[in-house]
Amino acid sequence: MPLEPWKILSSRHLFPKFRSDKCELPSGKPYTAFVMEFDSWANIFALTKNSEVVLVKQYRHGVQEILLELPGGVVNEGEDPLEGAKRELVEETGYSVGEIIEVGCLYPNPAIQQNTLYCYLATDVELTHSQHLDESEEIEVCLVPLDELPGMVQRGEFKHALHVAILFQVLAHLGRIK
Amino acid sequence: MPLEPWKILSSRHLFPKFRSDKCELPSGKPYTAFVMEFDSWANIFALTKNSEVVLVKQYRHGVQEILLELPGGVVNEGEDPLEGAKRELVEETGYSVGEIIEVGCLYPNPAIQQNTLYCYLATDVELTHSQHLDESEEIEVCLVPLDELPGMVQRGEFKHALHVAILFQVLAHLGRIK
Repeated sequence: MPLEPWKILSSRHLFPKFRSDKCELPSGKPYTAFVMEFDSWANIFALTKNSEVVLVKQYRHGVQEILLELPGGVVNEGEDPLEGAKRELVEETGYSVGEIIEVGCLYPNPAIQQNTLYCYLATDVELTHSQHLDESEEIEVCLVPLDELPGMVQRGEFKHALHVAILFQVLAHLGRIK
Repeated sequence: MPLEPWKILSSRHLFPKFRSDKCELPSGKPYTAFVMEFDSWANIFALTKNSEVVLVKQYRHGVQEILLELPGGVVNEGEDPLEGAKRELVEETGYSVGEIIEVGCLYPNPAIQQNTLYCYLATDVELTHSQHLDESEEIEVCLVPLDELPGMVQRGEFKHALHVAILFQVLAHLGRIK
């Protein structure tokens, strides 16, 4: 039997952006599925002229640790994801983009989230502004040589899975994956 | 000022496994943070003797698409993640593990989830069982040559970001990242 989507019989929101769908499975059985209707996310792999990656270090409350990550965040409603990525880069780090291209569109968690992760590679980025952070944000900017980042992932020093996926896309784009 | 964790002043569950924390930021300001207390996840990159990757194709209701992914799933309470990965592989695909090693531990979403994604590489896997699926699961098993998977990611044919991160860890472990 070929794979088929589930039929949605009825939907309701338990909270804003948190939906419960009463579904009928291809087998005919009923099933209740939950969907988190997050806005999409855009992250940016920003390289300086010296092949250093612009990273951000911040406290993450889910895991209660201070982590090294790529700049980025939520795409505002109606905002172009590429513009969102550039905006987040300059707000969080003060760096502005030279060239920028999309290196992929992934799903952060397709089973329970509907949103997309837009992945960008920016080159020749330059420090042009001071940081402009939200009230709850406290962010340190760190430059790391591109060649060192894969080893940092392997040693557990760069642990954000979605950002490791973006590193994959960037290295594939640069022809560095065999 | 060095980065500091947030102080949790009080916590309550809005739902089972969905927590609201009243926090004090390092600046002294109050902030309410939400944490999804998901159980950890384990996924397995399973290679046959012929260097084919064992993939699963299934409908994912968050994005309402049929997707190609790595086998894996939720680690049961009290279960060793490695045993969970082996169990999910055999249940979803019927393949059993020869050698297996951990190639990394990542955070799927450290801002709002506390859980860990355990990443395993299994080699010399062999078809030994028939599938044993949950009632809501309908899964097709696909074998894809390892050398083709990076191109599939680049072409948008393998879109699960967490599984792309595991592919990175595997290729790094195999010395295929420059």
